[in-house]
Amino acid sequence: MFRVYGTSASGNCHKVRMALEALALPYAWTEIDAGRGDTRTPEFLAMNPNGKAPVLEIEPGTYLPESNAILWYLADGTPLLPSGALPRAQVLQWLFFEQYSHEPYIAVARFLRKFHPDPESQRALAESKMKGGYRALEVMEGRLAQEPYFVGDRYSIADIALYAYTHVADDGGFDLGPFPAVRAWLDRVRAQPRYAAMPA
Amino acid sequence: MFRVYGTSASGNCHKVRMALEALALPYAWTEIDAGRGDTRTPEFLAMNPNGKAPVLEIEPGTYLPESNAILWYLADGTPLLPSGALPRAQVLQWLFFEQYSHEPYIAVARFLRKFHPDPESQRALAESKMKGGYRALEVMEGRLAQEPYFVGDRYSIADIALYAYTHVADDGGFDLGPFPAVRAWLDRVRAQPRYAAMPA
Repeated sequence: MFRVYGTSASGNCHKVRMALEALALPYAWTEIDAGRGDTRTPEFLAMNPNGKAPVLEIEPGTYLPESNAILWYLADGTPLLPSGALPRAQVLQWLFFEQYSHEPYIAVARFLRKFHPDPESQRALAESKMKGGYRALEVMEGRLAQEPYFVGDRYSIADIALYAYTHVADDGGFDLGPFPAVRAWLDRVRAQPRYAAMPA
Repeated sequence: MFRVYGTSASGNCHKVRMALEALALPYAWTEIDAGRGDTRTPEFLAMNPNGKAPVLEIEPGTYLPESNAILWYLADGTPLLPSGALPRAQVLQWLFFEQYSHEPYIAVARFLRKFHPDPESQRALAESKMKGGYRALEVMEGRLAQEPYFVGDRYSIADIALYAYTHVADDGGFDLGPFPAVRAWLDRVRAQPRYAAMPA
């Protein structure tokens, strides 16, 4: 059985829960709180020397970090990852877009405004993330105005990865009002079989 | 024949050249200069709405952005990408590590110090990238002190991706002196058949 070392309120960790639930895979969840130092213990660093959650325990002693690598590992060979060299590369295209051009703005603004112990002290930094976050949302809107999902016409781990922080972008101060195609896509994701909501 | 829209001095673009050369694949190269606006033209944005190089033209009308997605597309089915679910996921683990925990520090510091039109004005920003960059180098050193390459015992696209900016980290002000395993690995990469140096 898989075990996830993850933080329930983290979008990166929630991606893993969404995939496990969608695929009806049994798993256990160990809650990690970076704020109290859980990702800096010798035990955690032995699983992921980079000190970040989530980590997937595939079996005792075999650990896979990086949320989007975990998504690929879980989804390969299932309907959540298309076959064909080009569609698979396009899934990766959106997974890398998510980690480079989306998460560092939208997830970081959310963290600073919602989870930082002194959000007021972080206001200028959070504001500096807005332009890049809106740029990512514009790119998403452009795609979703033409197609229902990010790759082909089918729900995949590209959608799971981008949903994770987009559906809580308002926590970061982002207004999804000007992005109707993104909002319609969020609804389509929520309507998937075995959809797992982020724990409150 | 493939065409790369890329910037020769960019590590992200150079990865693509390294893979194409290593695999002896024929390609053409169109030089892109973001500084003169090449990534903001309607033609470029039609290839990649996110406005970033590199972009791989697979055939006219079919374009793949994101350097590490391109590496995967080119390498799948070749010795540069292992078989087996776990080794493939571990390649992705390092590709995501590179884009999230390495490039935003080491490549950005290099850009600010070497390519920005007014580097002096960027000094504080460049300095703010050093801690994260050294942290990434420590994670790499930990791996490479135990194994010759990032995944298994064989050269793969994980090595190409991480080589791209590590071998020019001194441009960003990073001292590789304290990282002997990283330096030995850089030499192993340079010794690969059909190694392609970054154009001067």
